[in-house]
This record gives sequence, C-alpha cells and structure tokens, in this order.
Amino acid sequence: MSANPLRVDGLQYSNWSEKIFRQLREGGVDAVHVTIAYHENLRETILNIERWNTWFERYPELIVQARSGDDVRRAQETGRTAIIFGLQNPSPIEDDIGLVEVVHTLGVRFMQLSYNNQSLLASGCYESVDSGITRMGREVIKEMNRVGLVIDMSHSGERSTLEAIDLSERPITISHANPHSWAAALRNKSDTVVKALASAGGMFGFSLYPHHLKGKSACTLDDFCAMVARTAELIGVEHLGLGSDLCQDQPDSVVQWMRTGRYTKGVDYGEGSAAQPGFPPQPGWFQDSRDFANIEDGLRATGFSPREVALLMGENWMRFFDQSFGPAAAPSES
Amino acid sequence: MSANPLRVDGLQYSNWSEKIFRQLREGGVDAVHVTIAYHENLRETILNIERWNTWFERYPELIVQARSGDDVRRAQETGRTAIIFGLQNPSPIEDDIGLVEVVHTLGVRFMQLSYNNQSLLASGCYESVDSGITRMGREVIKEMNRVGLVIDMSHSGERSTLEAIDLSERPITISHANPHSWAAALRNKSDTVVKALASAGGMFGFSLYPHHLKGKSACTLDDFCAMVARTAELIGVEHLGLGSDLCQDQPDSVVQWMRTGRYTKGVDYGEGSAAQPGFPPQPGWFQDSRDFANIEDGLRATGFSPREVALLMGENWMRFFDQSFGPAAAPSES
Repeated sequence: MSANPLRVDGLQYSNWSEKIFRQLREGGVDAVHVTIAYHENLRETILNIERWNTWFERYPELIVQARSGDDVRRAQETGRTAIIFGLQNPSPIEDDIGLVEVVHTLGVRFMQLSYNNQSLLASGCYESVDSGITRMGREVIKEMNRVGLVIDMSHSGERSTLEAIDLSERPITISHANPHSWAAALRNKSDTVVKALASAGGMFGFSLYPHHLKGKSACTLDDFCAMVARTAELIGVEHLGLGSDLCQDQPDSVVQWMRTGRYTKGVDYGEGSAAQPGFPPQPGWFQDSRDFANIEDGLRATGFSPREVALLMGENWMRFFDQSFGPAAAPSES
Repeated sequence: MSANPLRVDGLQYSNWSEKIFRQLREGGVDAVHVTIAYHENLRETILNIERWNTWFERYPELIVQARSGDDVRRAQETGRTAIIFGLQNPSPIEDDIGLVEVVHTLGVRFMQLSYNNQSLLASGCYESVDSGITRMGREVIKEMNRVGLVIDMSHSGERSTLEAIDLSERPITISHANPHSWAAALRNKSDTVVKALASAGGMFGFSLYPHHLKGKSACTLDDFCAMVARTAELIGVEHLGLGSDLCQDQPDSVVQWMRTGRYTKGVDYGEGSAAQPGFPPQPGWFQDSRDFANIEDGLRATGFSPREVALLMGENWMRFFDQSFGPAAAPSES
C-alpha cells in the first residue's frame, strides 16, 4: 500500500497510549517488539498482557497482536502496527521450565536470558564475574529452541552471550545495542560478539537509546548511519536492523525501576549517574516513532542501496521472525 | 477413516496416563473436554496446563490439544484424540475479568460459573439460597461471549442457571448431568432448565457418573438409553450429547478434594455419604473410554436412527464447538 519499505522496530518500552499508537502509524512502523516484563513474575506479567488486551480491544484500527511474520504482513495490509511481546528478563518463567511454552502460548516471542544482573539462566552485563550459561539456562535454551521463543542477549554479559550463541540450535538476537567499538557503553557489544552472532545467523538491532550512542543525546544522524555502514561491512547487511529501545513518555521513576526492580533497597544509576539519573533526551532526529523516515533517509545518504535500506528497515527482521517464531522443524531429540 | 460416527466426550477428569490415552483411542473417542481446574487459582491452573503440555509432547501419536472444531477434525484425520481444556470453577480467573481472555488464549474453552458452592459469579447447586448471577457474573458472561469461552452450568443452582441462559448472548452448556425427573440427584437438572437450555441453542451432555444415574452403579444401559430417548422427545435430539464425567483411576482422596477444595476444614460427602465416601463403581457397560461402543449400540437398540446416533455420539458437540469457540461474530456493543 505504501512506497516505503516495511519498517520494524526491534524493541520499545514506551508508556503506551493512543497518541503513541497513532505516532507508530504516522511513522509507518509495521511491527514493534514491545517489552512486557522487566522484573515481573508470571502473574504480574499476565497483568501486563491484560493491559495490552485492553489496548487491542480499544484500538483495533491502530494495533494488533502478532505471533508470526504472517501476522505482521496481515497487519501491514490492513494499515495497523503489529505488536510482538517480549521479556527483558526471565523472571516471568520463575524457576519453572514449563512456563517457557506457557509464555509462548500467550504470544511472547523474545526473552532475554538476563537483565544486567545474574539470573537463574545467565549473567548480566553489569556483573563483575560472568559465569556463563547456568545448568537451568542450558535446559531453557533447548526449550526456547523447541517452542520458538527467541533468545535475546541484549543485557547479558559477554561470556554468557557467546555461550548462548553457541548452545542455541537456532539463531538468536541482540535486539537493542550498538557496537562497543563505536560507543564504549557497558551495554554495547564487542566485535567478537557481533561477529559470532551474525555467523550463527542472528540479528543485531541498533539502539537509539542515548546512553548507547556516541556522544549520547548529541549523536548525529550521520555518525549513527556511518556506524551502521561499518557494522554492515564487518558482518553483512543481512543481520542488521533497528531496535530503538525507545522509552517514550515514561516518567523517570520507570527508569529507576528498570534498573533496580526489587534487587536492592538502594539506588542503581545504571547507565546514568547521580548527576543525570533520569531518562536522557532523545537526539533531535529520533524523538519518537514518527522519525523512522529520518533514519531511512540517513541510511540512503550514507550510500546504502534501496534494497539494503529495505533490509535494514525491516525485511531482515521479517526473515528472522519467519524462521524463529514457530516450533522447531524437527524434534530436538532427533 | 472409521465407519464409526465421530465420538465426543463432553467431560472427563481422569487420572491421565498413557494407558488411559490408549483407551481413548481404542474407544474411538475423537475429542474429550478435560477438566484442568476445580479449585485452583491461575498459577496452579497453569501448573496443570504444564502437565498437559508434557503429555502432548510425550504422546503426540495419541493426543493433541484442540482449540476449535477444525482442530478436532484434524485430530480425527490423524488418528488422535483431541483434548479440549475446561474449568469446573471460575477460581482460575480469580477476581480479574482480564483473565477470561488470558485463559482462552491458553486454550480453555469451557468454564463453569460455579462448582456446588457460591462463587464470585453464581450460586452452586448445593447452596441453600441461589441468589442468581452476581454483578461480576454479568460482566464475565459478556466477556466469555466476546472471546468464545463457553459457559457451563453443570454444578450451578437452578436460578443461576436460568439467568445465565437468559443473559448469555451465545448458547451455553450443561456438559455433564442428567434430568432430575429420571434420577433425583441434586446435581441433575429440572425439565425447566433442560428446556430453557435447548431453546437457547445450548447443549446438554448426559453423565455416566453413578451418582447421577437412576439406580446408581446398578443402572442398566437400557434404562440410560430410554432416558436419552425421553429427553430427545422433550427438547429434540440436536441439543444432546455425552459428558461422561468419568474420573478413571483417581484415588478417593481426589473426590474428597473435588468436594471440599479449601472451603472447609471438615468433611463434605457431596453426592456420597459417610457409608460411601469414595468414588462409586462405574456400571459394567461403561467402565472406561473403551465402552463408548456399548452406548452407541444401546442408542441404536432404543430406536434412534443411524443419523440420530451420530448426532448424539459427537456431531452435536462438533456443531456447538464450531459456533462457540471463536470470538463473537460482531462486537457486543453493536
């Protein structure tokens, strides 16, 4: 229906509202992976799903839940934004591997094995020691492979990430991060990780969260797109997409909760600092979902061909969704 | 594939095992509505779903989960028994109407509004006062209608049942009971209820639980089939099926838990007595799922035509599944 390439955002955690849903439409965003849990247990996660069900019922002309690549295509054909559920922490599966299939049945398609801290499955990128994938982690990776729940290592430590890439029989993702060689944030990923991810068929989503950008909020669109180009030279354009990490309209209390959950009674500034404890301002060229066209323009200006721009803006994610969201082709025991 | 008519059992709560799944196949049972909760809250119900997922994974050649009539047809074509989840109590939705859609997403297709006692939604058939459908009950009925979760009033009181039939915009069921005029058990249903159910397009499933049978365990097949024939004369054969209420291989501790859950620290004999507190023995002609052929033979001997036997053995349930398990055709506000 549109001359624009299909647009997929590999991660958002906005303070959802009709306004934001309309901006997704204005921005031509065909699909967005939305975080439905950071620290919640199963019951709390289901409360978040209930909120989404209310939005799906209230705004059927703007959004629709997607469980497959075909669902995204149907959303695009009917002029709506497909919403794909994901978890930034394995807390919703508690200590119970049976919940992997249950959350998949509920529509969850991504799960991070850890979020900054150690989890039952893997180490987080903020731990001083990364002990790799745990005993339960190995079992959960097999189960996620079986049912079609994508492993996301955006917030995990380097060793855990490399082990997950190696242990998983299906491609995994780092849905929202940037190369550490470009911006030396603890959350950004080494070239070793980026290359290993791509070699195993995985997807890397570029983040637009200022703490992950070179120069933070002052980062320029040119600089961002040049970084995309260098990464494409390193691993090939087929493994790259966007994962904006947009946290639009969230109060600063939310970023504080994202960082601490229930793990401490103290303060954890995460990627911020005592001087800047809240959400950092977005760069001018990516204020909200209406600005995906700016990135598309920037990628063209950097020298990507129209075909490459289409891959980067969404088609790579679509290929990944098609191959990742269903049950494994053959039983894992075969 | 088989010359036998399609066979559907409208309710079982057996102590599931490979043996029982094989007996379902031997008995040619194409679909069975299985109870996955009596008194469980959401998290406990999900543990029960996890057990079912383990069975689905372990016995894929015997059983498969069904969410629609078409799923049942696919099961029949591939020689497997379709398993349809149901709740005998609204306890899994707790006090939270949002859980109606959540349990439907998890595959639940039937929910009783009460189980013997008062619930948040309706009165049970053992309460001395039946106050009818509650405020929350009215809301939940609308929501069940919207998402395609069937209202089952098998264990509810008469007033609540008549009100549910009236309030529901879609046909409801009494999945497992018999006419009170035939066997005067508290759980059996008055002709008023049976007629109102059928007038509203609902389905009545005949129980083979001895406490619901005339003469209990000594009930004869002829007597059972004659009762089916009289009921067909009363309301038409199209609204009738089987709901065996088979509780095969369950220890007596389970029937005690079914009766009391967590509502009393004392003893509730339910339909039993101090002299016979456990599960009553099944009649000789219906010991387990292999005996559906006996009922089919009995119905033919009673004078039902082959077409009528096919309707009674499963086709009526299939028509009901087809019209009941999906979302409402039009928004309820229209």
